[in-house]
Amino acid sequence: MKSLLLVTGLAICCTVSAREGELTRISPEALAGAAKLRDEAAADPVAYAFVADLTTQIGPRLAGGDNDQRARDWVVARFKALGFDKVWTEPVTYPKWVRRGEHASIVAPYPQSLAVLALGGSPATPRGGLSGQVVAFKDFPALKAATAENVKGKIVYIGYRMHAARDGHDYGPATTGRTAGPALAARLGAKAFVLRSAGTDDNRLAHTGITQFSANDAKIPAAALSNPDADLLERMLAEGKPVTLKLDLDCGIEGQYTGANVIGQINGSEHPDELVAIGGHLDSWDPGTGAIDDGAGVAIAAGAAHLISTLPQRPKRSIRVIAFANEEAGMFGDRAYGAAHQNEVARHVLGAESDFGAAPIWRMSSQVKPEALGAIDQMMQVLAPLGVERGGNGSAEGGDFGSMSAAGMAVLGLTQDGTRYFDWHHTANDTLDKIDAKELNQNVAVYAVFAYLAAQADGDFGSAPGAFSHAKEE
Amino acid sequence: MKSLLLVTGLAICCTVSAREGELTRISPEALAGAAKLRDEAAADPVAYAFVADLTTQIGPRLAGGDNDQRARDWVVARFKALGFDKVWTEPVTYPKWVRRGEHASIVAPYPQSLAVLALGGSPATPRGGLSGQVVAFKDFPALKAATAENVKGKIVYIGYRMHAARDGHDYGPATTGRTAGPALAARLGAKAFVLRSAGTDDNRLAHTGITQFSANDAKIPAAALSNPDADLLERMLAEGKPVTLKLDLDCGIEGQYTGANVIGQINGSEHPDELVAIGGHLDSWDPGTGAIDDGAGVAIAAGAAHLISTLPQRPKRSIRVIAFANEEAGMFGDRAYGAAHQNEVARHVLGAESDFGAAPIWRMSSQVKPEALGAIDQMMQVLAPLGVERGGNGSAEGGDFGSMSAAGMAVLGLTQDGTRYFDWHHTANDTLDKIDAKELNQNVAVYAVFAYLAAQADGDFGSAPGAFSHAKEE
Repeated sequence: MKSLLLVTGLAICCTVSAREGELTRISPEALAGAAKLRDEAAADPVAYAFVADLTTQIGPRLAGGDNDQRARDWVVARFKALGFDKVWTEPVTYPKWVRRGEHASIVAPYPQSLAVLALGGSPATPRGGLSGQVVAFKDFPALKAATAENVKGKIVYIGYRMHAARDGHDYGPATTGRTAGPALAARLGAKAFVLRSAGTDDNRLAHTGITQFSANDAKIPAAALSNPDADLLERMLAEGKPVTLKLDLDCGIEGQYTGANVIGQINGSEHPDELVAIGGHLDSWDPGTGAIDDGAGVAIAAGAAHLISTLPQRPKRSIRVIAFANEEAGMFGDRAYGAAHQNEVARHVLGAESDFGAAPIWRMSSQVKPEALGAIDQMMQVLAPLGVERGGNGSAEGGDFGSMSAAGMAVLGLTQDGTRYFDWHHTANDTLDKIDAKELNQNVAVYAVFAYLAAQADGDFGSAPGAFSHAKEE
Repeated sequence: MKSLLLVTGLAICCTVSAREGELTRISPEALAGAAKLRDEAAADPVAYAFVADLTTQIGPRLAGGDNDQRARDWVVARFKALGFDKVWTEPVTYPKWVRRGEHASIVAPYPQSLAVLALGGSPATPRGGLSGQVVAFKDFPALKAATAENVKGKIVYIGYRMHAARDGHDYGPATTGRTAGPALAARLGAKAFVLRSAGTDDNRLAHTGITQFSANDAKIPAAALSNPDADLLERMLAEGKPVTLKLDLDCGIEGQYTGANVIGQINGSEHPDELVAIGGHLDSWDPGTGAIDDGAGVAIAAGAAHLISTLPQRPKRSIRVIAFANEEAGMFGDRAYGAAHQNEVARHVLGAESDFGAAPIWRMSSQVKPEALGAIDQMMQVLAPLGVERGGNGSAEGGDFGSMSAAGMAVLGLTQDGTRYFDWHHTANDTLDKIDAKELNQNVAVYAVFAYLAAQADGDFGSAPGAFSHAKEE
C-alpha cells in the first residue's frame, strides 16, 4: 500500500514528458486501457490456440532436430496470421545434439529394466552399452567431497530428491548434479553418470536436461533415472551388495546447426524504434511436446501482443515477441539476440520472458531504475486483481533476455506458480493437457498489461548500456 | 446398529456348537483376540517388506515371462521364511503371450510419436508395422452400431474417457472397449485397433490389459494409447483431415506355459481340514513392477496370515494364502484352483481376495448364508474402527476365488479405495512408491481380523456345493 500512496503523490507532481533523472509515469488513460486489456484477456482464445496448435501440428522441438525448421516456419506463419506488423528471423548457431535411443538396466543383484533418458550433451556409450558398479552420493556436494579412489571405473549415481515449491527453489540444488555432476565424475575417473531425476513427481518418466562439459573435460555418458527407478536402485544399494548397472546410450553431438530466433513485432505509433520485448523459447526437449516448456511462454507473449494489436490504435512503442532458439542446451538464442542487439540496449525499454510453465503469475519483480519504480507500482494497480504481488527491484534476471539484461536492459520477472511445473518439466509428460486455458490467460493478461503500459509510459525504465550492474538487492 | 443388537441377542440364545440351519457366532474371546490383531497390524512390517522385496528383487511378473519361475520360487521361500506350516504349488497352464516391443506414430496430417502399449493377447503387426486411416468411436456401443463399410481396412480407435471413483465403477465401461473392441473391429474388417487407455491419469504412459479373441475371431493387432496421446490424436481428428496411424507391435502367443499357484498355509488346531482362504495374484503386467496389481494383494494376505501365526496358539481352522497365477490374461490361476478343489468347496469356509491396490478398505460386502449374517456383523464390530462400512450380502464375487465362489464357497468383498488405483493400473507406474505402508497395514488388519474370526467361528458361512447360485441382491 505504501507504494500505491507514493504513486498517487507522483502523479500530481510530475510533468508529462519525462527526461533523464525524471520520474517515469503512466497516464490514467493508459491505465484504463490496460485494465480493459486485462479483462479481455480472460476469454481470449489466441494463446491457448497457439500452444495447442504448436504441440499438435509440430510437437517436440529439440534444437537442431527434425522439427526445428518446421517449428520456425510454423511460428512465422502464425505471427503473420495474427497480423503482426513485421515478422523475421535471426540466425542462431550451436552444436547439434542428437538422441537416437537409450536403455538402462540393473544387472545385479536383481535384473530390472530402468526408465532412463540420456542428458542433453551426453556422449554415447560404446555400442552395446557399458556396465559398471554403482557408487552412490546423496547430492552434488557429496560427490565433490569424493576421491578418485572411490569413483574410478565406476558409475556415479547422485540421488538428490527434489521437492516441490511455488517458486521452484529446489531446482537449483537438483540441477547442480545434472549440469556439473557428469564433468566432475569424469574428472574423478568415473565411466558413466546417472542421477535421480530433477523432478517432483512419482512417474516412471525420466527428466532430461542439459549437462555441461568444458572443452578440457573428459566426457562420459550421463543419464537421468525416473524417480521410481531411483527408488528401486536405492533399495538395492540399501541391501549392501554391489549393484551393477548397464547403460546403453545412443546420442551425441553431430556438428553445428544454424537455427533462428523468430521475431514478430507490433510497430509503435509514436516511438517505433523503442520497444517492449516479450517472449519465450521455441525449442523444447524431445520426450514431450514442449507445451509447458516452453510453448506456453511463446503463446503467452504472442497472445498478449495480439491482444494489444486489437486496440484501435497501435501503442506508442513497439511490442516485440521473440521465440528464442535453443534455450535448453545453453541459452543460444538469448546469446545470439544479445550479440545482434548489443548496441540497442537503450531501445529495449523493458522486457520479460515467460519460461516457467502456464500456471498463474503470482509475483512481479523488476530490474528498473529507481525513477521508474512509481510506474511499476502503477502497473501493480492493474495487476493486483489478477493475484500478482510485488517482488523486489534488482532481482529480475530476464531468462532469455539474460544477455540483454546483463548489458543494461530493464526487465521484469513475472514469476509463475511452479508447484507442479517440475512434475512434468523435461519429461514425456510435457503435453498440452497440463495447461489450463484460464490460467494461461491470466498470464496473457499480465503480459498484455505490463507490455502495453511500458509502451505507453512517459519516460523509460532505465535501459542503458551498463545499467544495473550493481542492482541486485532482493 | 440394528445388526449389533441382533447379534447381542443371538449370543445369549445360541449354543456353542453350531449345526446346519443354526446361527453362526463368534465368541467374545475371539473378538477380543481379533481386536488385538487389528491393533498390532498397524505397525507390522511383514506386508510392506513382502511387496517391497518382491518388487525390488523380482520386479515385473508377466505370466509365463522370464520372471515367472523366479517369482514363484521367491514366494515359496518367503512363505517358508514367514514360518507357514505348509507351502506348496499347484500347476496352472495357459497360452503364453510375449511382448517384445511396440511403436506407434501418427504419420499424417502431422507426424508425431505416440506412447503405446500392445494389449495382452494382441498378435503382432506385419514386420515393419502397418499403416491405416483412423476411424474413431466415442465408446464401445458406438463401435457396435458401426457398419463394416465405415470400418473395413481402417484402424479403429475408441476414445472412451474413464473417470476416477472410489469404487472404480467406470472401469467396466472403459474396459469393454479393450476386451471386446478388437474382436468386434476385426469382425467389421478393421486392420488394427487402438484405444484411449482405460486409466484416470494424464501421464504419457499407456495402460495395457488383456483383450479377448474367441477361437473363431480374426485377430488384429490391438494397443492402448496414453491419455495425452489420445488427446493428441483426437485434436488431429477434430481438424477434419484424414489421420493416418502407423502401428508396429512385436508380440503374440508362443505356445503353452505351465506356471503355478503358490500356496502357504497356517494349519488349524481344531479343524485343520477347514480353511479360510485369502490371497492375491502373483502375476502382473510387465511395464511396471506389479506393486499395486497385485503384489500388494499377496502381501496383505501373507501379512495377515503371518500375524495370526504369531498368536500363542494356531487358530481352530487353517488359514490358507494363495498367490494366484496369471490372473491378468483371464483368471487362469482362479480356474485351476477351482478345478483342483471343486470337491472341497464346503471346506473353504470363507475367503476373500485382495486385488484393487493398497489403499484402505472402506466396505465389506459378503456372500454368506443368512444364518451367518450375525457373525459378519460381529466382525464389523472389530472392523468399524478401521473405517470399514458394511456392504450388502450376496454381492461379493471373490476375484480369484471366482470359480470357487461360483461353485458355492462363501466369500467377502473387501473393497479398497480405488480413487487413484486407475492412475497407475497396468502401467509402468505400478511401482512400490504408490503404496503407503500405513494404508497397506489397514488392509492387513482387516484381513487378519476377518480370517481369524472366520477361523474361530462356531458354525460356518454357508460354503456348500451349489450354494449362492441365486444370491445376488445388492
